[in-house]
Amino acid sequence: MSWHRKHLLDIESLSAGEIVTVLDTARAFKAVGERAIKKVPALRGKTVVNLFIEPSTRTRISFELAAQRLTADIVNFSADASSFKKGETLKDTARNLEALNADFIIIRHSASGAPHFLSRVVNAHIINAGDGAHEHPTQALLDTFTIREKKGRIEGLNVTILGDILYSRVARSNIWALTKLGANVTLCGPSTLVPKTFEQMGCRVTHNMEEAIEHADIINLLRIQHERQRQTMFPSIGEYTTLFGLTKARLARTKPDALIMHPGPINRGVEIDSDIADSGRSLILEQVTNGLAVRMAVLFLVNGGPGPQGVAVG
Amino acid sequence: MSWHRKHLLDIESLSAGEIVTVLDTARAFKAVGERAIKKVPALRGKTVVNLFIEPSTRTRISFELAAQRLTADIVNFSADASSFKKGETLKDTARNLEALNADFIIIRHSASGAPHFLSRVVNAHIINAGDGAHEHPTQALLDTFTIREKKGRIEGLNVTILGDILYSRVARSNIWALTKLGANVTLCGPSTLVPKTFEQMGCRVTHNMEEAIEHADIINLLRIQHERQRQTMFPSIGEYTTLFGLTKARLARTKPDALIMHPGPINRGVEIDSDIADSGRSLILEQVTNGLAVRMAVLFLVNGGPGPQGVAVG
Amino acid sequence: MSWHRKHLLDIESLSAGEIVTVLDTARAFKAVGERAIKKVPALRGKTVVNLFIEPSTRTRISFELAAQRLTADIVNFSADASSFKKGETLKDTARNLEALNADFIIIRHSASGAPHFLSRVVNAHIINAGDGAHEHPTQALLDTFTIREKKGRIEGLNVTILGDILYSRVARSNIWALTKLGANVTLCGPSTLVPKTFEQMGCRVTHNMEEAIEHADIINLLRIQHERQRQTMFPSIGEYTTLFGLTKARLARTKPDALIMHPGPINRGVEIDSDIADSGRSLILEQVTNGLAVRMAVLFLVNGGPGPQGVAVG
Repeated sequence: MSWHRKHLLDIESLSAGEIVTVLDTARAFKAVGERAIKKVPALRGKTVVNLFIEPSTRTRISFELAAQRLTADIVNFSADASSFKKGETLKDTARNLEALNADFIIIRHSASGAPHFLSRVVNAHIINAGDGAHEHPTQALLDTFTIREKKGRIEGLNVTILGDILYSRVARSNIWALTKLGANVTLCGPSTLVPKTFEQMGCRVTHNMEEAIEHADIINLLRIQHERQRQTMFPSIGEYTTLFGLTKARLARTKPDALIMHPGPINRGVEIDSDIADSGRSLILEQVTNGLAVRMAVLFLVNGGPGPQGVAVG
Repeated sequence: MSWHRKHLLDIESLSAGEIVTVLDTARAFKAVGERAIKKVPALRGKTVVNLFIEPSTRTRISFELAAQRLTADIVNFSADASSFKKGETLKDTARNLEALNADFIIIRHSASGAPHFLSRVVNAHIINAGDGAHEHPTQALLDTFTIREKKGRIEGLNVTILGDILYSRVARSNIWALTKLGANVTLCGPSTLVPKTFEQMGCRVTHNMEEAIEHADIINLLRIQHERQRQTMFPSIGEYTTLFGLTKARLARTKPDALIMHPGPINRGVEIDSDIADSGRSLILEQVTNGLAVRMAVLFLVNGGPGPQGVAVG
Repeated sequence: MSWHRKHLLDIESLSAGEIVTVLDTARAFKAVGERAIKKVPALRGKTVVNLFIEPSTRTRISFELAAQRLTADIVNFSADASSFKKGETLKDTARNLEALNADFIIIRHSASGAPHFLSRVVNAHIINAGDGAHEHPTQALLDTFTIREKKGRIEGLNVTILGDILYSRVARSNIWALTKLGANVTLCGPSTLVPKTFEQMGCRVTHNMEEAIEHADIINLLRIQHERQRQTMFPSIGEYTTLFGLTKARLARTKPDALIMHPGPINRGVEIDSDIADSGRSLILEQVTNGLAVRMAVLFLVNGGPGPQGVAVG
């Protein structure tokens, strides 16, 4: 096992060995979720704070359940909380949480770098649950876990990420994780959302959907944030679907064992055909299940793993 | 004990024997709430999700405490949650919760039939906490429990339900439960809110308050939703109170052992005189206490009861 | 140990001996927060309700963690809850919570006296988490705990409270606690916010900042509620800072061992210079840590202390 980090701030700074350690640990925790009694005492008496300055029910609940299954205590501190209304700074909020003996702060924030900033001003373990357009490391770890579980490996696989790459922390974290583990990553979407500069991250960039998915083993569809970008980055949802939506016709021209992923929540009929989302080719719900296991693994590892008392996972 | 259902979706489909099983089980759980240590380990390591798409603090807290006292883990997912803002469907939300290994989904929703729909698309146990104007089964079970506890039986009792019957899921579920157990049910209120068609459910319908309560053993007053219906269904709150409010003068003409119920929250001075609500004739707070016991019983029974490990209630 | 109260409603009615009992008990609980496993089973199977009718994330989380560390079950009932929207009275809400077998109700309310009112209508233990401009007893207890811990005593110390005294429940509770324990309390701020009538509480009142802090052992800065009072009580934030802000120049003229307190959240650069807030002279974060210990102590004591089973704190 190779893990000596106190925080999980991003994927960029992790080694391939560290990523594999998370995936291996998550495999053990996935089994816990399948038991009748889905709890282990690994974090008993520890305090976890969900500091969500940007709303996210799904990710918040996933972390909340991960903490509960590790027998930690957890409190939620969400965006429209009174302290922020009163103008308190993020630093002051975090130091207050630390003063409450918080052992872990799970932070989602609209500002890139907020988790890194926190890790410098408090002693608690910091876990990045999404910071601006920068990174969403647990999403990339759960995506990588899911691919490895289904395909048996990451190295040499062709993974295509489709959609709004420019503003996507999911894309950035996935690119780091997948390239570190040896996958061939292709990015595709409208040229305004998928600039050629991403080639510097070791990816192939194309604006042609058919070409992007032709040889893919994995097609990871990002959510179109149509409530925000419609006016600015592409002419219409309809045009997006026409050019980049995963339809049955397009799926028919992919490799027969190509699998479909999506970080959710999906826009049925926009970036993905509704039937494909529900088909055996879709890994969307497995990603959710694996997310919980990965988050348990991350909490467990940053806490120091089994520790001197040797609390076993299994 | 006769209970083999995986879900609690409504009262309509339950047999009298199943209803009695819930009431008997709730009696054992009521004793747990009176202990110094109000917990039993029946659902340890199980995950309960409160999926409240329509706000309800009281019912949500009642289910939350019921789950805690059974030692389950519980997370709240409420109405203005981010996923719904982003346009995710109910089906997708529920399947995501299932992918998080949720064992129970307690759903309140403004759409009639939402719990039944969920029971067809996910494997978790579904408990209906109120669906539109359709049913609110745990409310009817706690009302029936309270009547049986006070009167010793249901069969042959005269139960009058007063108020907005047309739009009331509480009324519908109560009518099913009470008639299945042999009570004589009378409905009363303005003719716009208590149409004659309810006679098809086996009830007597009257629009005369005095006649409705004259021979009643139980008078169950529904809440007037005056924030919504004032303009449309009856001329004014004042007129409603004049015609259908339970005043001391009216109470004096009922049977001396007639008891008063209300699902809460009450409008003091509208559907009920404030002193009556606080009197020894009122069962309003006992209903709340019994609601918790009934919800523990429901969670326990849909989970399969004591199960192979034989976790005892007492 | 001298504690026989069922509730904590205010500081005004406590004796010096009772205050000291809370402080001594909190000292034992502070040690719990420093352990690897921060839990004691003192309130296992007890139900705590956070009834926050006025929003406060920080105080709510502090009580939530205090309850969790005592192994109680806790549910949150917050301000924009549906029942209040529907017009239910506070009394009815509290009696409903009691009917759910709530053992403790922690109440924050904009109306002075709300906790006292509750203590007369329900049987649960009531803890005042701030009522209007009246009292905020746990804040005063944590402030007093912090002073005693740092200075070794309260008696004979010069404590200066600065800012909006007139509308501050923190000031009122602190004045009661400090004068009961023998401190010399000085109040300072704009004359509109610090009327001479406070001398009747046994304090010195001055409107001259330099004079107020010159001999102080402790300077407790209250938060300026600039979002509310700007227009009415003083001409501008800038002028407040000029006259009453704690700047480095002013701090240089205080006793070298004078320590700085603030109930938080702070307005950096308004009532306190940012560097001072982060300096070794500031006790702001220690106050937060001590708040949790004090709240554990209060829950423990109103519950009857160690009780017949003799659950040990340590």
